[in-house]
Amino acid sequence: MGVPDSAAKPRVRPGGRSERVRESVMRACLELLTEGKVELPIAEVADRSGVNRGTIYRWWPTSTDLLNDALAFHVRHRADAPDTGAWESDVRFLITELASLAADPVERAIIATMISDRYPSLNHAMMGWYRNDRPHWFAMIERAIGRGEASPDVDPAIVLQMMLAPAVSVSVFEGRALTHEEIDSLVALVCRATAPLHN
Amino acid sequence: MGVPDSAAKPRVRPGGRSERVRESVMRACLELLTEGKVELPIAEVADRSGVNRGTIYRWWPTSTDLLNDALAFHVRHRADAPDTGAWESDVRFLITELASLAADPVERAIIATMISDRYPSLNHAMMGWYRNDRPHWFAMIERAIGRGEASPDVDPAIVLQMMLAPAVSVSVFEGRALTHEEIDSLVALVCRATAPLHN
Repeated sequence: MGVPDSAAKPRVRPGGRSERVRESVMRACLELLTEGKVELPIAEVADRSGVNRGTIYRWWPTSTDLLNDALAFHVRHRADAPDTGAWESDVRFLITELASLAADPVERAIIATMISDRYPSLNHAMMGWYRNDRPHWFAMIERAIGRGEASPDVDPAIVLQMMLAPAVSVSVFEGRALTHEEIDSLVALVCRATAPLHN
Repeated sequence: MGVPDSAAKPRVRPGGRSERVRESVMRACLELLTEGKVELPIAEVADRSGVNRGTIYRWWPTSTDLLNDALAFHVRHRADAPDTGAWESDVRFLITELASLAADPVERAIIATMISDRYPSLNHAMMGWYRNDRPHWFAMIERAIGRGEASPDVDPAIVLQMMLAPAVSVSVFEGRALTHEEIDSLVALVCRATAPLHN
């Protein structure tokens, strides 16, 4: 997957004029994505961002380049898998972060478009991010096993689902974020589900 | 919520001509829902079902009547919350059923439309079903607590999310159903998360 790689090398100096241009273009793209317009037509991106088409074409020769960079921009604030030194606080950190991400309007729109299967390129790019993040999440579980805080026989992929899926589910079905109380309950259940067996 | 109630009293004799008419109309509606056409325009329902508009108008005066009955028809094969006599087999039964439901094309289309927020009437009707089912699922957890198989301090709403959400999540993000192995892992984790504490 080239997506996370290309996103990792910023092409502009942070804070400079070109950084401001890039941010305008990215925000216009995210607006379009939130409205389900995954095609990101360059004319419309130019209109909304106030950046001229020539510049956009030069920096992002294709709509796929725009889409990949817009998704990179969207997830830029997402931290790596936490490493707080303890399983319970790692679980709490990750669930809290995912709960807030899943309730974000841009993310909801992306999920809605993904499930519509209308834009294979979007699903492909998003699955690229997911596959890129997954080893880091798995490593977080491995560290807990190494410290004796999680049982070595748990299936990391399903533990990950247990942490990720409820936030997505309440966002999809109820249009809301998990509450603090729900996060507490979920953290407790995940820790109990993964605790080493003592008998 | 009136939706599940009205769905509970069939207006036609099973197996008769009117039952066949109803089934044709319902299948046409589910086809339209799968294509994201939640408005269920009566002219198009008539075309696809081969049932004339007069009959459709007489039985279903509004598109909302059609939508509610189509959703009732869609979930008709869904069993009630299981009561196998043991927590682990109840959990397995429910997760297996929900995994197959979440991967169903009609259900996927409904979820996609729900998350798009384009049709509040659909979200409203689906949440009606969900609220109707939820007490039965909670009762299943209560029975397990009563038998001493589940800890009385678990949060039933979050236990339910743990059982429901992974199937929805892999259907949304990966366009597939949970595998048998994933179901086994998830059942084991749910049982461990909910097991009574012995110390």
